[in-house]
Amino acid sequence: MAEKITPRDEDYAQWYVDIVLKARLADYSPVKGCMVIRPRGFALWERMQDIIDSMFKATGHSNAYFPLLIPESFIRKEAEHIEGFSPELAIVTHAGGEKLEEPLVLRPTSETIIWAMYKKWIQSYRDLPILINQWANVLRWEKRTRLFLRTTEFLWQEGHTAHATSEEAVEETLKMLNVYRTFAEEYLALPVISGRKSEQEKFAGAVDTYAIEAMMQDRRALQAGTSHFLGQNFAKAFDVTYQTANGDLDYVWATSWGVSTRLVGALIMAHSDDRGLVVPPRVAPTEAVIVPIFKNDTKERVLAYAREIGGTLGDFRVEIDTDEQNSPGWKFAEWELLGVPVRIEIGPRDVDAGKVVLVRRDTGEKTTVPRNNVPATVKSLLQEIQKSLYEKAKTFREENTRVIGEYGELKEFFDGPGGFAVCSWCGNGECETKVKDETKATIRILQDPTPEGRCVVCGNAAQANAVFAKAY
Amino acid sequence: MAEKITPRDEDYAQWYVDIVLKARLADYSPVKGCMVIRPRGFALWERMQDIIDSMFKATGHSNAYFPLLIPESFIRKEAEHIEGFSPELAIVTHAGGEKLEEPLVLRPTSETIIWAMYKKWIQSYRDLPILINQWANVLRWEKRTRLFLRTTEFLWQEGHTAHATSEEAVEETLKMLNVYRTFAEEYLALPVISGRKSEQEKFAGAVDTYAIEAMMQDRRALQAGTSHFLGQNFAKAFDVTYQTANGDLDYVWATSWGVSTRLVGALIMAHSDDRGLVVPPRVAPTEAVIVPIFKNDTKERVLAYAREIGGTLGDFRVEIDTDEQNSPGWKFAEWELLGVPVRIEIGPRDVDAGKVVLVRRDTGEKTTVPRNNVPATVKSLLQEIQKSLYEKAKTFREENTRVIGEYGELKEFFDGPGGFAVCSWCGNGECETKVKDETKATIRILQDPTPEGRCVVCGNAAQANAVFAKAY
Repeated sequence: MAEKITPRDEDYAQWYVDIVLKARLADYSPVKGCMVIRPRGFALWERMQDIIDSMFKATGHSNAYFPLLIPESFIRKEAEHIEGFSPELAIVTHAGGEKLEEPLVLRPTSETIIWAMYKKWIQSYRDLPILINQWANVLRWEKRTRLFLRTTEFLWQEGHTAHATSEEAVEETLKMLNVYRTFAEEYLALPVISGRKSEQEKFAGAVDTYAIEAMMQDRRALQAGTSHFLGQNFAKAFDVTYQTANGDLDYVWATSWGVSTRLVGALIMAHSDDRGLVVPPRVAPTEAVIVPIFKNDTKERVLAYAREIGGTLGDFRVEIDTDEQNSPGWKFAEWELLGVPVRIEIGPRDVDAGKVVLVRRDTGEKTTVPRNNVPATVKSLLQEIQKSLYEKAKTFREENTRVIGEYGELKEFFDGPGGFAVCSWCGNGECETKVKDETKATIRILQDPTPEGRCVVCGNAAQANAVFAKAY
Repeated sequence: MAEKITPRDEDYAQWYVDIVLKARLADYSPVKGCMVIRPRGFALWERMQDIIDSMFKATGHSNAYFPLLIPESFIRKEAEHIEGFSPELAIVTHAGGEKLEEPLVLRPTSETIIWAMYKKWIQSYRDLPILINQWANVLRWEKRTRLFLRTTEFLWQEGHTAHATSEEAVEETLKMLNVYRTFAEEYLALPVISGRKSEQEKFAGAVDTYAIEAMMQDRRALQAGTSHFLGQNFAKAFDVTYQTANGDLDYVWATSWGVSTRLVGALIMAHSDDRGLVVPPRVAPTEAVIVPIFKNDTKERVLAYAREIGGTLGDFRVEIDTDEQNSPGWKFAEWELLGVPVRIEIGPRDVDAGKVVLVRRDTGEKTTVPRNNVPATVKSLLQEIQKSLYEKAKTFREENTRVIGEYGELKEFFDGPGGFAVCSWCGNGECETKVKDETKATIRILQDPTPEGRCVVCGNAAQANAVFAKAY
């Protein structure tokens, strides 16, 4: 509708909400914290699903579906799990007109119900590995919500694998982390850092959690995907053992990993500008839009030419805007708001000259191209946009990442615009908590320690480099 | 596992359950009435989703996502709707550690939440039509459940469209019914009859419900898809008006339509036999399986040849069974249980002769084919199987459909093996109820009346031909 969007500089949070609502990606629902994903937002998620799902299948995983409703007692079987999820549970107490004997929880994640089933399916090493993924809705009763980034109900995929050895499970954990990294970087044009989480930040029930983290335009971190090595925690909670090749009995090893509709939020925040949404071509539902510009006397000629050009672009996802109500200027602004990577403008003079005008969404740059060159130019423009969005985001992240050795400097860094602070850390939760309390920054991921490094807080010998940031 | 399946003649219901469990399509879950869809069952649903989703997009629909949780008061806004769904609702009363102010219902269907949103999105005729579909889980607290066919939670798609005129909405209703018919017949090889439902059988909140109905091998009817003309019922309940081109205000016209994971049950029941699952090739996740037969000394040669044959079948969905634990006989039985349409057997002598043996799952017929002919023969076999499954099901339905004019004969028909009984019907609910009470058969669909027809129950002038059947 070409409505005004709040500029980023003025109010970053409002800018984000404006884009989501005005580009019709999502809307608030009557139930607090739940959102409606509108067709233009859902099309982004569908593109992501298609790509990620192929990557899962290429790495040997199959999809399945487990029930939404989980007996409350299941959630309690793994001590850390219940501690972490208990405050966020939504509970069904009545159904079919009667009070239930045992309340049922709406899944906040499916480890418990899945491991209850794996107990039935796993007897011997020949039943392993199990490599299952599920696309589903999950519910976590969040106090503060934000469209796409944190909602009470969200859509996600959750992989749940079962293995005969610890090594194999760790390998799977890292393999899927790498699938997420590849997807984020090559498709979403989202440069990420990846690594292990601290004890405080890990998944409730995991031995180790690994994550990919991206920097948004306000310099905050956004966790874009997690992969957990669960050890034998859930196998023990649900008594899932298997007979090894030697005939011994052992508990099964597990992983789980997920990405959610939060990625749509990440995509919006990472690349968009004050004119609206900017979408990397590889995940754009529409890669190019043809906007014919005509009056009554030129309509037929221009439209015929536009369709002809459209016909030469069969290799791309293309829309033609045949609307006759709005002015060209209005339409250009509208397609910019909607984030289509390339706009193809065609007026009567272009028809006469056998040309078209191509406009890049990211830079606004215009090129006039003879008709025969349109497919080749569109192709190279899409590649350039994809690359350039990634490079721009990467440069921004690098410019806003600082290695910090002094606690005073760390505090100053987060009093200012902030970003990613790479600091030596002793591994002690108290130092981590102190930083969190005094700067609101948390450890996003851990990396290998700098030799001879000293903890930025207490000065003790460092166990790791911690990347601190304020996070979504 | 090549386990024994209960024969259809012995116990049809158990035969069905045996196939579902032994072909690892689904499993019972710890929550009563909910099922787990295992990878082999989910792969069938995924194939169906892919195809149906393309058909929706080809008819101009987009996907979106609406919340699972619906305020209880919404469900009460349409009088018939609440009456129909109230006994089946599951209700969330607590979340985030607190009692909710208003209980939330887990969607049994989404008309109410969607029309609450359409009120926000529709102002003028220019906002119409809205053509949205949603893939989602829904919950209906059923007393008696049966894997795939009737479960407390199931997966489905629900289309919800909004139109400026009654004519357009009726056209949409029938268009989507036709999409379902095409999908059932051309992909599932499931011949269906279609038509309007009686008042008693229609969707709670609809003006008219249309359905496609298929006959299973036990001669019962299975409703495989429904399409509803909702009139202005939901627009009135949620006060959704629009400004017409003339500047008047009118309520918006609506449709909704859906198919569910029940289709997987229909597929299993319609075509399978006492050896296991039979899947029509067009929806089979694996169209052909290559089973190499070797001993230690022939292993390398046979496997290399099998891979070579596999390499020539790039146009098909093919698996190679490289398992070395089980005997050829065991494997053949296993692949029959799993329902793969074509089995390609390759032994050392086939390698020497440059041939393979092709076996049809539906008939067990074997053909020996020279290697160069494998792709062409597989292609024609798959086409023949698809056609033959459809023809067989159609012949069976025709043989078990009877036009009945006398009430005594109708009762006798349903005391016996039953089937579809086509009878003149006066349109009176009392006659319908009498048939239901005395034969357990219900009206599946209504067709045009036979001229001069007289109601099979009361003898009054017929308003329609009713197709009666016992139904799932």
